[in-house]
Amino acid sequence: MPSSKLNVCLIGYKFMGKAHSQAWRTVGRFFDLDAEPVMKIICGRDAAAVAEFAERWGWEQSSGDWQSAVRQDDVDLVDISSPGSTHAEIAIAAAQAGKHVFCEKPLAFTVADSKKMLAAVREAGVKHMVNFNYRRCPAVSLARQMIEAGEIGEIRHMRCTYLQDWLVDPNFPMNWRMRKEAAGSGSHGDLGAHSIDLARFLTGEIDEVVGMKKTFITERPAEGTSHGITATAGEGTEQVTVDDSSVFLAKFANGALGTFEATRLAPGRKNHNRFEINGSKGSLVWCFERLNELDYYSTSDPGTQQGFRTIFATEGAHPYAGAWWPPGHMLGYDHSFSNAASDLVQDIVHDRPCAPDFHDGAQCVAVLEAVDQSIESGSWAQVERIE
Amino acid sequence: MPSSKLNVCLIGYKFMGKAHSQAWRTVGRFFDLDAEPVMKIICGRDAAAVAEFAERWGWEQSSGDWQSAVRQDDVDLVDISSPGSTHAEIAIAAAQAGKHVFCEKPLAFTVADSKKMLAAVREAGVKHMVNFNYRRCPAVSLARQMIEAGEIGEIRHMRCTYLQDWLVDPNFPMNWRMRKEAAGSGSHGDLGAHSIDLARFLTGEIDEVVGMKKTFITERPAEGTSHGITATAGEGTEQVTVDDSSVFLAKFANGALGTFEATRLAPGRKNHNRFEINGSKGSLVWCFERLNELDYYSTSDPGTQQGFRTIFATEGAHPYAGAWWPPGHMLGYDHSFSNAASDLVQDIVHDRPCAPDFHDGAQCVAVLEAVDQSIESGSWAQVERIE
Amino acid sequence: MPSSKLNVCLIGYKFMGKAHSQAWRTVGRFFDLDAEPVMKIICGRDAAAVAEFAERWGWEQSSGDWQSAVRQDDVDLVDISSPGSTHAEIAIAAAQAGKHVFCEKPLAFTVADSKKMLAAVREAGVKHMVNFNYRRCPAVSLARQMIEAGEIGEIRHMRCTYLQDWLVDPNFPMNWRMRKEAAGSGSHGDLGAHSIDLARFLTGEIDEVVGMKKTFITERPAEGTSHGITATAGEGTEQVTVDDSSVFLAKFANGALGTFEATRLAPGRKNHNRFEINGSKGSLVWCFERLNELDYYSTSDPGTQQGFRTIFATEGAHPYAGAWWPPGHMLGYDHSFSNAASDLVQDIVHDRPCAPDFHDGAQCVAVLEAVDQSIESGSWAQVERIE
Amino acid sequence: MPSSKLNVCLIGYKFMGKAHSQAWRTVGRFFDLDAEPVMKIICGRDAAAVAEFAERWGWEQSSGDWQSAVRQDDVDLVDISSPGSTHAEIAIAAAQAGKHVFCEKPLAFTVADSKKMLAAVREAGVKHMVNFNYRRCPAVSLARQMIEAGEIGEIRHMRCTYLQDWLVDPNFPMNWRMRKEAAGSGSHGDLGAHSIDLARFLTGEIDEVVGMKKTFITERPAEGTSHGITATAGEGTEQVTVDDSSVFLAKFANGALGTFEATRLAPGRKNHNRFEINGSKGSLVWCFERLNELDYYSTSDPGTQQGFRTIFATEGAHPYAGAWWPPGHMLGYDHSFSNAASDLVQDIVHDRPCAPDFHDGAQCVAVLEAVDQSIESGSWAQVERIE
Repeated sequence: MPSSKLNVCLIGYKFMGKAHSQAWRTVGRFFDLDAEPVMKIICGRDAAAVAEFAERWGWEQSSGDWQSAVRQDDVDLVDISSPGSTHAEIAIAAAQAGKHVFCEKPLAFTVADSKKMLAAVREAGVKHMVNFNYRRCPAVSLARQMIEAGEIGEIRHMRCTYLQDWLVDPNFPMNWRMRKEAAGSGSHGDLGAHSIDLARFLTGEIDEVVGMKKTFITERPAEGTSHGITATAGEGTEQVTVDDSSVFLAKFANGALGTFEATRLAPGRKNHNRFEINGSKGSLVWCFERLNELDYYSTSDPGTQQGFRTIFATEGAHPYAGAWWPPGHMLGYDHSFSNAASDLVQDIVHDRPCAPDFHDGAQCVAVLEAVDQSIESGSWAQVERIE
Repeated sequence: MPSSKLNVCLIGYKFMGKAHSQAWRTVGRFFDLDAEPVMKIICGRDAAAVAEFAERWGWEQSSGDWQSAVRQDDVDLVDISSPGSTHAEIAIAAAQAGKHVFCEKPLAFTVADSKKMLAAVREAGVKHMVNFNYRRCPAVSLARQMIEAGEIGEIRHMRCTYLQDWLVDPNFPMNWRMRKEAAGSGSHGDLGAHSIDLARFLTGEIDEVVGMKKTFITERPAEGTSHGITATAGEGTEQVTVDDSSVFLAKFANGALGTFEATRLAPGRKNHNRFEINGSKGSLVWCFERLNELDYYSTSDPGTQQGFRTIFATEGAHPYAGAWWPPGHMLGYDHSFSNAASDLVQDIVHDRPCAPDFHDGAQCVAVLEAVDQSIESGSWAQVERIE
Repeated sequence: MPSSKLNVCLIGYKFMGKAHSQAWRTVGRFFDLDAEPVMKIICGRDAAAVAEFAERWGWEQSSGDWQSAVRQDDVDLVDISSPGSTHAEIAIAAAQAGKHVFCEKPLAFTVADSKKMLAAVREAGVKHMVNFNYRRCPAVSLARQMIEAGEIGEIRHMRCTYLQDWLVDPNFPMNWRMRKEAAGSGSHGDLGAHSIDLARFLTGEIDEVVGMKKTFITERPAEGTSHGITATAGEGTEQVTVDDSSVFLAKFANGALGTFEATRLAPGRKNHNRFEINGSKGSLVWCFERLNELDYYSTSDPGTQQGFRTIFATEGAHPYAGAWWPPGHMLGYDHSFSNAASDLVQDIVHDRPCAPDFHDGAQCVAVLEAVDQSIESGSWAQVERIE
Repeated sequence: MPSSKLNVCLIGYKFMGKAHSQAWRTVGRFFDLDAEPVMKIICGRDAAAVAEFAERWGWEQSSGDWQSAVRQDDVDLVDISSPGSTHAEIAIAAAQAGKHVFCEKPLAFTVADSKKMLAAVREAGVKHMVNFNYRRCPAVSLARQMIEAGEIGEIRHMRCTYLQDWLVDPNFPMNWRMRKEAAGSGSHGDLGAHSIDLARFLTGEIDEVVGMKKTFITERPAEGTSHGITATAGEGTEQVTVDDSSVFLAKFANGALGTFEATRLAPGRKNHNRFEINGSKGSLVWCFERLNELDYYSTSDPGTQQGFRTIFATEGAHPYAGAWWPPGHMLGYDHSFSNAASDLVQDIVHDRPCAPDFHDGAQCVAVLEAVDQSIESGSWAQVERIE
């Protein structure tokens, strides 16, 4: 066990709070870290509920007051897993208090906010990371390694879809994710942001976009009580103020052509975060629904033996996989969070830049915003390059 | 055997000529037709080569002069499988001679030409069909039946890709398909036209589009000799004058959102003509590379048992399949041509409208052309509705 | 067109007669043959029905009397596609008349009959081939080439399943395939024979077997009328006298271990003729339901990039594929019959041995029979090696 | 958090010790348990190594002396994850000390030992469970529920394969798993045991078996140092004393036919623990390599829409899945251990029988042993029914 400690303050205790807690509990068991993350304090709006969560998950303290918590002397890292509308304020406060900041995606709802956050962490000289967790599925990390090694040559096409179906039922009631003020946008910022980050990670910067968004089901039963994945409607109805679906074309800086599609209305697609990349020498395909697999086609294989091969990224030599189980023992959703936590801890200890950082987070928001501009203008929009 | 005959004049004897000849030889064996198609005459530019082809395939006559052939008294139907640049002239001549016309896709290179062809067949009162053969893969026909029966509800999304990889090698030499004057366009008209037709067949009319095209490999070795799928370069190089890739977004008249991508530069994708349709009650997915299969998801299945199911469209009750083999005996590429020939013969005999007809062919060209307009303007373009 | 002719006499005009007729009509169109097969005469029990079939399919003559037909001077090759119970008599008569013989599988119901047939064709010095058509799906032929080239090393395991589901419904009425006197056996000889042939083709001879067979549905509605794949029951019931399912283990001469399973009671498996072979250097997997694909794993691929790759066996350099369509244009069930016809014609013209020949057919029957012996004895049984 | 505690003593700290530790750390976070498992003490042969493991994983105490540990007053449950050769002695001691016992598979190497263990836990009146973890992958539990609900009718066929490839390289050095005295057997007891348990769980008891085993690579480099999945050879070579592969046929008590195959020599199969079950009304297929998916075919689906459907068993209504993440968020290998721990804790608290218990474990060993008997006799062997 490492002698040095890294004290974590987590904000948020719902779905993402659970995922981050599990990562902090788990990371030091599987990875050889140079500092042991300590689950110091967790914050949430409902002090009683967060106290109960803290006990269950092993957080030393809990609090209803994040403003104080992020300034505590015994906190080294602030981990923001609360809704997107709160990211900017918390991240800036944490940075100003000299804490490293780990933030859920999307970084913010606007480029303007993103820039403020980026300025704050740069000013403070703290480490900053955005949790685009899919980068750290071993198969995706492997894809990046292979692209960097030139295995598929120069990239010409990338097609990204992030399809879900949990809003197909028109009687599924409202919740915060369908309100613009709380969620910023619908599929666009929630799912599309992941695709954009993967595109930037694997293919590169996007120069221009043109797109469309649509809300197919504009009114839903009012919010009632929600129990995890099920929900009961309240009385009356409420207007949906975000998009169900978002689609756009992209021109990459390196000349590649991209298509992007995000929707919550694709029956049967549970978490279909998929990309396909075609290069001059090969292709790569990945989908979260089979997250351990990377499909790879190489034009270098013997002529009559070429075909897409399915690589199970569970070997010791695959990224992250060696820390977990023997080959062939599949990983799930939450392992990607531990993988991120591992890198973050090591980056902090060894004073290395994190990736994806707030600049990446901001650049992703710039793409989202450019799509919105293209929709307003009905024509292609330039993507702002964040300094 | 039916007592009445339908005399066919085929124009073209290369890849498509072979496919059409196989259809005419085969259709009367498997389908119970009310007229027996007779392989009367085949035409091509090289009289000697076409004579040899005629002997091999069982055409009664051959000719280097299509103008005379299409006017022969003993010809009932002119089947045009020569390159796209020749379609308009031949089709109009055939119609004026009072012959039914069967034409390969794309109908023409321009909306203007398409309209002339449509006017000619209407004027002549002859039957007219465009050979978008993928409509007649049993799994695709089944998809149409299921959509019409309301199985997937109201359509919200359609994503179409038609990906090939035969031009990935930059040393693959030039041929007519890469010259604008002969081919009209590259992937756009060759592959994209198929996707657009499937979209119109399954989802409906397209109102607006915005897109982009790109030629990644702008110069290739000059054309040498070509032996089927292999080719030897000649001396020097030649400029490629068509697109390698074409991508566009579409707004359907029924409110659905569409994405379309066609390319010849996707390593590993041999004939990846694929669509996915998401409706309010289910989804359908098909890809030519596994042409006998239709994937179907239904929200009507019991809650814990929902999943995409792979239907092998080879049962007697599936479209066309009953004419061929017992269940589970897979069909291939050429069967779709026989299926088309079967419908065409019966439509002619029973004086029923064909589908897809020249109006469909023209409307498809209108979408292709609108994409080109959107590229010029950098903004969304309206698709002309052909009368 | 070749100047020499090969006159074919076909026996049988049902499912197999249709498949063979299509092959004879088609083979000379796609393959460059050194003799043109002529559809000379077709024989069947019902002279009127066979005459109608002959007209439809283009057979020059038809006859209800195969005994005379196989002796006709203008017949070079007798093609036996009638039920298995008739094979021995016809083949021996044909051989004695000096005709080449092409016979559907299984060659015969007993080793004794098989030996007589083998003796007859050897005595006559005629060519003889058994139509194990799956050998000639391009992906299977490719598998054989790869094994011979050492791509998967020394074979250790082969698992074969041939699963269908057309007898799952207990109300599906009796037909000849469920009567021992007509069919010899059920799944065992019908489906298992195919698997055994593929095993011998790809892995080698089988030394010992132990197995079991079972009839789950022992009584069915009496035979009524049958219309292709649907059937109407007659009055009363009839005892099923063949197996629904057959399962056995095998020890190959080369030390490999084999498992074999054939059944008509596997819901959802339409024509699931599948094998997987594991060697010391790689694996190969094929299934008829996706007949154009061969899955291949190689331990020679780079360590982190190993995975099963799906080869579409449709390239010009793949066996048989070059004769048909451009790459990526899928073949179906009937193409394998044309591929066989092509090889047979060329073997006859060039006086080369055919494969699989009657010796292969007899050896396959020896394995089937050994399984039956093992069932009687309840222990492993030696497989007779046919001279 | 529950007020009552359940103190766990874990034996073993290698691969299985890690998997069990992760389960005990995790289970109380995701499941609502009626007792909180406490990681009280961990035992292993190397006291220093186990102490380090204890610190890393959060075990309160550690010890090199399991005999004392299992008798400690503050221990309620003994969890045995040490090699199979140690199971009997530890389990019996634990039972005699009045502790509940959780034991890794296989329960023991012989039926005789298994019976002693079963007698001991029955005598002591303690709870006993064997960790056949694959039963508790949600998709497998769902399969059981569906079978019990009659969804696939009466079972006729089950084919089980458990294929791995980690011993394909003949230079992979020896370790304890290839020594009979330490491992009991090779693939047979290690992999085959899992398949047998799944067969008993889903299809029922096995009456008779006949099989074969083989060691293809009989000598390997001597054991050197091993670092997780990689290993370095020592000097010289050593004889392999267990099977590489094991294959057998089975007759189930309910009349179904079974095939079983286990091997460590199947290139490309990383953890291919797969079963297919065919019933009178449908089929079910599962493979650990895609553990979240259950393939289901139902003859009750509409005629033209039947097909294998892929159910992602990640919905709240699927077994165990609701405790983890929202729908579509995939689980991995280790989640099945937490699922087992959850059931075990609740069974102990509520005094309910566990499943699979030591009787199941013993019955599984009886099948393994019967296969060995059949190999000796060369004929079918009866499976002893454990009382």
